[in-house]
Amino acid sequence: MSPKITTELLKQLRQVMKSPKYVQEPIQAYIVPSGDAHQSEYIAPCDCRRAFISGFDGSAGTAIVTEQHAAMWTDGRYFLQAAHQMDNNWILMKMGLKDTPTQEDWLVSVLPEGSKVGVDPFIIPADQWKRMSKALRSAGHDLVPVNENLIDTIWTDCPQRPCKPLITLDLSYTGVSWRDKIVALRSKMAERKVLWFVVTALDEVAWLFNLRGSDVEYNPVFFAYAVIGMNTIRLFIDGDRMMDPAVREHLQLDCTVEPEFKIQVMPYGSILSELQAVGAGLSPKERVWLSDKASYALTEAIPKAYRYLTPYTPICIAKAVKNASETEGMRRAHIKDAVALCELFNWLEKEVPKGTVTEIIAADKAEEFRSQQKDFVELSFATISSTGPNGAIIHYKPVPETNRTLSVNEIYLLDSGAQYKDGTTDVTRTMHFGTPSAYEKECFTYVLKGHIAVSAAIFPNGTKGHLLDSFARSALWDCGLDYLHGTGHGVGSFLNVHEGPCGISYKTFADEPLEAGMIVSDEPGYYEDGSFGIRIENVVLVIPAETKYNFKNRGSLTFEPLTLVPIQTKMIDVNLLTQKECDWVNDYHQKCREVIGAELERQGRHEALRWLIQETEPLSRVQ
Amino acid sequence: MSPKITTELLKQLRQVMKSPKYVQEPIQAYIVPSGDAHQSEYIAPCDCRRAFISGFDGSAGTAIVTEQHAAMWTDGRYFLQAAHQMDNNWILMKMGLKDTPTQEDWLVSVLPEGSKVGVDPFIIPADQWKRMSKALRSAGHDLVPVNENLIDTIWTDCPQRPCKPLITLDLSYTGVSWRDKIVALRSKMAERKVLWFVVTALDEVAWLFNLRGSDVEYNPVFFAYAVIGMNTIRLFIDGDRMMDPAVREHLQLDCTVEPEFKIQVMPYGSILSELQAVGAGLSPKERVWLSDKASYALTEAIPKAYRYLTPYTPICIAKAVKNASETEGMRRAHIKDAVALCELFNWLEKEVPKGTVTEIIAADKAEEFRSQQKDFVELSFATISSTGPNGAIIHYKPVPETNRTLSVNEIYLLDSGAQYKDGTTDVTRTMHFGTPSAYEKECFTYVLKGHIAVSAAIFPNGTKGHLLDSFARSALWDCGLDYLHGTGHGVGSFLNVHEGPCGISYKTFADEPLEAGMIVSDEPGYYEDGSFGIRIENVVLVIPAETKYNFKNRGSLTFEPLTLVPIQTKMIDVNLLTQKECDWVNDYHQKCREVIGAELERQGRHEALRWLIQETEPLSRVQ
Repeated sequence: MSPKITTELLKQLRQVMKSPKYVQEPIQAYIVPSGDAHQSEYIAPCDCRRAFISGFDGSAGTAIVTEQHAAMWTDGRYFLQAAHQMDNNWILMKMGLKDTPTQEDWLVSVLPEGSKVGVDPFIIPADQWKRMSKALRSAGHDLVPVNENLIDTIWTDCPQRPCKPLITLDLSYTGVSWRDKIVALRSKMAERKVLWFVVTALDEVAWLFNLRGSDVEYNPVFFAYAVIGMNTIRLFIDGDRMMDPAVREHLQLDCTVEPEFKIQVMPYGSILSELQAVGAGLSPKERVWLSDKASYALTEAIPKAYRYLTPYTPICIAKAVKNASETEGMRRAHIKDAVALCELFNWLEKEVPKGTVTEIIAADKAEEFRSQQKDFVELSFATISSTGPNGAIIHYKPVPETNRTLSVNEIYLLDSGAQYKDGTTDVTRTMHFGTPSAYEKECFTYVLKGHIAVSAAIFPNGTKGHLLDSFARSALWDCGLDYLHGTGHGVGSFLNVHEGPCGISYKTFADEPLEAGMIVSDEPGYYEDGSFGIRIENVVLVIPAETKYNFKNRGSLTFEPLTLVPIQTKMIDVNLLTQKECDWVNDYHQKCREVIGAELERQGRHEALRWLIQETEPLSRVQ
Repeated sequence: MSPKITTELLKQLRQVMKSPKYVQEPIQAYIVPSGDAHQSEYIAPCDCRRAFISGFDGSAGTAIVTEQHAAMWTDGRYFLQAAHQMDNNWILMKMGLKDTPTQEDWLVSVLPEGSKVGVDPFIIPADQWKRMSKALRSAGHDLVPVNENLIDTIWTDCPQRPCKPLITLDLSYTGVSWRDKIVALRSKMAERKVLWFVVTALDEVAWLFNLRGSDVEYNPVFFAYAVIGMNTIRLFIDGDRMMDPAVREHLQLDCTVEPEFKIQVMPYGSILSELQAVGAGLSPKERVWLSDKASYALTEAIPKAYRYLTPYTPICIAKAVKNASETEGMRRAHIKDAVALCELFNWLEKEVPKGTVTEIIAADKAEEFRSQQKDFVELSFATISSTGPNGAIIHYKPVPETNRTLSVNEIYLLDSGAQYKDGTTDVTRTMHFGTPSAYEKECFTYVLKGHIAVSAAIFPNGTKGHLLDSFARSALWDCGLDYLHGTGHGVGSFLNVHEGPCGISYKTFADEPLEAGMIVSDEPGYYEDGSFGIRIENVVLVIPAETKYNFKNRGSLTFEPLTLVPIQTKMIDVNLLTQKECDWVNDYHQKCREVIGAELERQGRHEALRWLIQETEPLSRVQ
């Protein structure tokens, strides 16, 4: 992978940073955040402005270009990838390391006195604007909105914003109708005494209306906003997709409905002016609810006194707790996904020794097997198919320049998942197709111990996920090892593979307490730069736990793995496991054998079934 | 314990809340925070305003009195105590429970439109003012400073502010001279480009000048402020204690010294006007550093643009990392403290069966044995001597009305500590002087497993203490149990028994990363209201850990127990321990035997030595 040469682009950007055509006064720095106008993690090609200007296309990163410097902040998952993709014009700011300055501190250290720092107000979330603006102001600088996106002005071949057809989801998938979701939302609005709710996140719009799209790769969402009043529903969406009779029927656009369920469809681009009109028409005490991560531009449309901002919206919280239909769908999706992976791993065991399977071929094969399953829609993220040293690049995606051939001498890490109409999957398995070294087995076993410690943890109702993070690290810490990423993220139901408001991370963020029905990933790892990467990831469902006692009647929770794919026992040093851990592995494999075995049988996939049986042989500890 | 009858007092307070003599406009609510003008946790009798108005005298709690209501917020340690001490005029707000409103939310729910909420600006920390003020303003109310403390206006027999003699500490105790501390502080100030530093916390003043006092019970501090400039030192302190020749020599008040080490002594009460003068004389870019927990009044003395506020001051952070002299002092103090406790427990084993030992007698006896030790100064907090159901009152202090007789049928919990001139101790042991039930042993053993999990934890350099909290709870959580307090707090070196900036808690607070030399407590517990309380507490020193590997060269840390008092093996259900946990107990007891045994021998305390030997017999697990 050779880095993108950005000298000319940076020169052009620095020119428009001074051009009166775009800025009232010259700006001395320009911030290029990662997201789009909806603060999405995965974005459409037209929104990949940070990748365009820097070459770094990981899912998280913020670029800042000043007159002299260009710097990129990203986290531990992307240190190696960013270093590979960026040329010498760029300084890599490794977030999470002790000596890495924050964006604010760095700006203050490099800017000349009284500088102006520009940013697209549609892209920067209001909470980030506030923090950045305050820090800059206290050092004598100003954060200013630049309404025309400066990257777009120099991006001559910028692709069009996508506008693909919609999918309607019926009750058998969603469990709750969109009308009932609106009723529940309005009741939350009444509780907080707000009159309007602005839906800005794409997955929240999709969830609320039981619609899905394909405007953004991997995430079944579509570009739209919604503004929900106590008696009105406005949906801001472009294109002729609203002419689709199925969509019109689903949304009851052509029927006579009670006025409070009548959906007004408006152009996507009219959200700002409509919201400004809402803002202008408010009487005292009439409040408008927005996420504090909504864009600065939309937030500013509502006068400050009328804003009600929360870190998580009621939709985000309701969406995280899956109902019975969604949970059953997720189970079905994970069974199908496991069938595809059993086929893949069986195939790899045969093919890898021949020396003809590359990372790209393996990834394509995984997609092929998944696409054979019912209700398959697309992948849920770019497959991480990595062998040997590539495994240490945490969010690696094989490209021809880096494509490595799988062999019996290297560890292979596959982190992959799919969108099925009934659910979203995300699973990582680390395999060796020859004989792993004692050290590789040792590291794998520590990671497994961490995975089990989270998966089997019992904790009180109301516990926040971040309190479980150290369980995943304890075995690694004991021998001086660690990994530089969080342990788990929320997973959507045929929606984004990463979703809030819960997670498992050492970073203290405002996570909501875990509750039964939430779904998160459990994915500790260990990475040695230049050598190998290990990660073991299951998607797990939060369920009530039976405990001997029940302190203060609070009740307890634990996790049930939805992912049912064998964990390669060849990689386990059984003598490093406790009996309890050993039992966990055996119970897990027994369940894989029963549930996935039955489905492989049903689908007539006998060879993969034989592989599954062999891979789920019970472990036993030397006494 | 009967509650304080507060009907008349609340009536008087509500009158002064409307009196033009004290408030410009009537206020509809008055906040009575816990602290003093230095935001101390332990306060002098003259500052016990919240206890005066409510009866509740625990170390943490905030009272709010409105025209109709009186409400008290406190945490899990004090739920029972507050319920006992307050009459029916008071609503108890149990912090940490899901349905308990915040002070702000509660005020908004009960106040009439456009209310004014008053508070003493010298007592409320600036960060709390800001949060409260913002929340009230957004709901249409105002937070207003009431310069004369309204509790003081109705407190006719309020005691005088204490002004006791000072103790000077030489280098053998402190390791660093006050001049060198000033030099280090000024270098931190230069790094952050601030010209002035305002020392507001009492323990920070004491630490900086290597002085101690006894103005506040249990905490060897004295009422003072300091303002450190790059070339000036101002110490604000009252009384003739500055006439003491030892103090004058220690501070070099009468010698010719370099001007930058010349201490100007000023009246305690002049801090506000002096600080206002500093504030008025600032040029642009001249900043003044204050803790964001400094009082609103002092913070406001510096114009906003010139303030540099941080959650922890450089003194707080330097003070937390003990140097070799301080660590050795802490070790000596803990050895002496263990000798006293061996004497006590040996005495209790003999006396409890006679039925003549009450909680108060046991606490007094503990103090008696401690006071026999060299350099004993005073207790470091009110001894928690509690048996049976009293043990479930987490910060219980025996008083005649509640005083219970120790017996062979109940669990006895003793949480106690002392101030020695060379260090501060804080230790909890839970004992049974008869035969504990299987259930009591089970609970004790879970608590012990949690204690060991923290004490033996290995974790990377830079880890924050809150990431270790779940280790302490895991064994309890597994069977549905928990405790409603944090797991550990920083401990001062002949200073406050609770100090920042580190700690071990499920509450996410801005704790600083743990580093070698820091000293914290490790004190998980389990409490059954109405039955018993269990807690096992050691003070532990953060030390470097040897690990097999060393990821990213970060290095690892672990803890070394400074407390060396046997953990009652009779209370342990050995079969619930892993072999590793069993080894930990045996190693710990071996060390107690060696170190404390030698000192008991040296002091000729042969009976206590025999008790120690018997209590430190190795455990063995049934295989």
